Amino acid sequence: MSNLQNDLFLRACRREETERTPVWIMRQAGRYLPQYRMIREKADFLTMCKTPELAAQVTLQPVDIIGVDAAIIFSDILVIPEAMGMNLEMHEGKGPMFHNPVRTRDDVSRLKRIDPWKDLKYVMDAVSLAKKELNGRVPLIGFSGSPWTLLTYMVEGKGSKNFSIVKKLIYNYPSLAHEILNKLTEAVADYLSAKIEAGVNAVQIFDTWGGILSPNDFEEFSLQYVAKIISLMKRKKEPVIFFAKGVNYDPTKLASTGADVLGLDWTVDIGKVRNILQGKTALQGNLDPAVLYANKEKIKSEVIKVLESYGCGNGHIFNLGHGILPDVEPENAKALVDFVKKESPRFHVKESLNKGT
Amino acid sequence: MSNLQNDLFLRACRREETERTPVWIMRQAGRYLPQYRMIREKADFLTMCKTPELAAQVTLQPVDIIGVDAAIIFSDILVIPEAMGMNLEMHEGKGPMFHNPVRTRDDVSRLKRIDPWKDLKYVMDAVSLAKKELNGRVPLIGFSGSPWTLLTYMVEGKGSKNFSIVKKLIYNYPSLAHEILNKLTEAVADYLSAKIEAGVNAVQIFDTWGGILSPNDFEEFSLQYVAKIISLMKRKKEPVIFFAKGVNYDPTKLASTGADVLGLDWTVDIGKVRNILQGKTALQGNLDPAVLYANKEKIKSEVIKVLESYGCGNGHIFNLGHGILPDVEPENAKALVDFVKKESPRFHVKESLNKGT
Repeated sequence: MSNLQNDLFLRACRREETERTPVWIMRQAGRYLPQYRMIREKADFLTMCKTPELAAQVTLQPVDIIGVDAAIIFSDILVIPEAMGMNLEMHEGKGPMFHNPVRTRDDVSRLKRIDPWKDLKYVMDAVSLAKKELNGRVPLIGFSGSPWTLLTYMVEGKGSKNFSIVKKLIYNYPSLAHEILNKLTEAVADYLSAKIEAGVNAVQIFDTWGGILSPNDFEEFSLQYVAKIISLMKRKKEPVIFFAKGVNYDPTKLASTGADVLGLDWTVDIGKVRNILQGKTALQGNLDPAVLYANKEKIKSEVIKVLESYGCGNGHIFNLGHGILPDVEPENAKALVDFVKKESPRFHVKESLNKGT
Repeated sequence: MSNLQNDLFLRACRREETERTPVWIMRQAGRYLPQYRMIREKADFLTMCKTPELAAQVTLQPVDIIGVDAAIIFSDILVIPEAMGMNLEMHEGKGPMFHNPVRTRDDVSRLKRIDPWKDLKYVMDAVSLAKKELNGRVPLIGFSGSPWTLLTYMVEGKGSKNFSIVKKLIYNYPSLAHEILNKLTEAVADYLSAKIEAGVNAVQIFDTWGGILSPNDFEEFSLQYVAKIISLMKRKKEPVIFFAKGVNYDPTKLASTGADVLGLDWTVDIGKVRNILQGKTALQGNLDPAVLYANKEKIKSEVIKVLESYGCGNGHIFNLGHGILPDVEPENAKALVDFVKKESPRFHVKESLNKGT
């Protein structure tokens, strides 16, 4: 870590001492930034993902423009199913779409095992390039969807309200679901290991759709695979963040995956979760993304509420509880980052550290 | 209650002794039933709500066809904003739409105070008629949206993904939001009191969109108003069920409203919630609605899981964790009801009752 000028984020992931709370924003390289939209006007979303120069360029924008403490490589969770042989299309405003959704055993058998260094080389190149351009200013995060979340998209084929098709799969053909989940687990573990080899300093696993499952189903169809990925991944000290949006029935289950950090959405009280976990993991979150629609004074008071809820001590990475909304004013995102930087040091004074976890 | 041949549901709401667990299904009078669709073909949704004969007819269908232990009057939560002066349109598959959403102080001042016996007389007539036709077979439930959920629809004007408009309202013009919420609280309390006077045996308050709020915001913009409604309502022994979908951070807060029963979605473990509440309320729920896509054997095993999770003793009303999905086979809904009737008596044997709450 000695090469990083700002390693606050990594120290917080490991619950080490920091002088203030680090902050980054999910989807920080995104449409709310005019500088992003300028590039996006000239290249479609997937072209941006697949062109390392463009991906690296937008990855760095929020570091320069709003001053976050970590960069996250610009990419999409669906590059893995695409590399496995699915036809991915992205439609602005309509969400991603697979024209050949996975529905039968034949569809499953056609999913190929990926070699991330070959099939997703453009991601590794983007990581190397972003790393070089960051030049040690802040850490770089890599990410993947969880097997369950990837399965959901692969089976539904497009956005869904009730997730009927994937629910029918798990309730009527559970062994087929597990077959795909096992393939995805292997792919995600290989992919994240490759990203680490390519240079990311931490990884985040997004389980965007874990929250549509009952506790039992979540444990059977999502949680165990995330745990397996974390145990399979080749890494040194690179922390793993697990963000299971809407899965709030028992944080100790999420911690049991071996994740170093749990991401929290804004529907839970981060202080209560901290109390339950008793230092088992660091916590990331959890401001309502819609707070960035408010005026600066309100943003400030809401930032302070989250800091106060977490309380004194280490192990907190400030973030939104979900991705930043595309119609937020960039100056409000910057205000959020500035408020965290200015208001958080008092939660990290020496006396408090002794009381912290 | 002496006039009811089957008052299991009401006894369970009051945590009194029952010989088995009662069961009903949210949206049980709905599109999954061919008998419902036959009526719906001849009349649009709002006409059905506003024609007491049709509303009563579909209200009784699930009692006859699938054998539930309670009927719920066929209606819609948006009849209140319509009665307050908003123009409501229902589009099959697209959801409801208001052409004059509430956005300004002027819009708010135009919302009129309702007299349920005049402005929503068709609901009261439907209740009386359904009550008469039920002839004491099972209790009849009335319902309303919570002020927050009604506000969300009234401000957004139509379905929403991020609820940006209503979030902008509460973060930037909280006093205007509270003004509308106060008006709605009055209207809902009057409406539910009138329904009770018209003959319903219990009421359910649906907070469908409470789950998009942080805990603090939920308490400020939803919870306190539900508590106020419950304290204002004119009722004798009629229980109140409060179902705040996706609000799972602290069930004791939900119980603090004075509700007799809490409805639970399927993302929580009903047994754990029971342990937390220690008998403060009865619980209703909480099978994943998508389980009804499965085969009978799976439906049975999932029904048993919910019964086992709740455990022995009284105070459980079996239900789905959300409305029944429109493409479910009616025979699967009937199988669910039959499995609850057949499998639940062993959770109500005398010995267990003594251990129960």
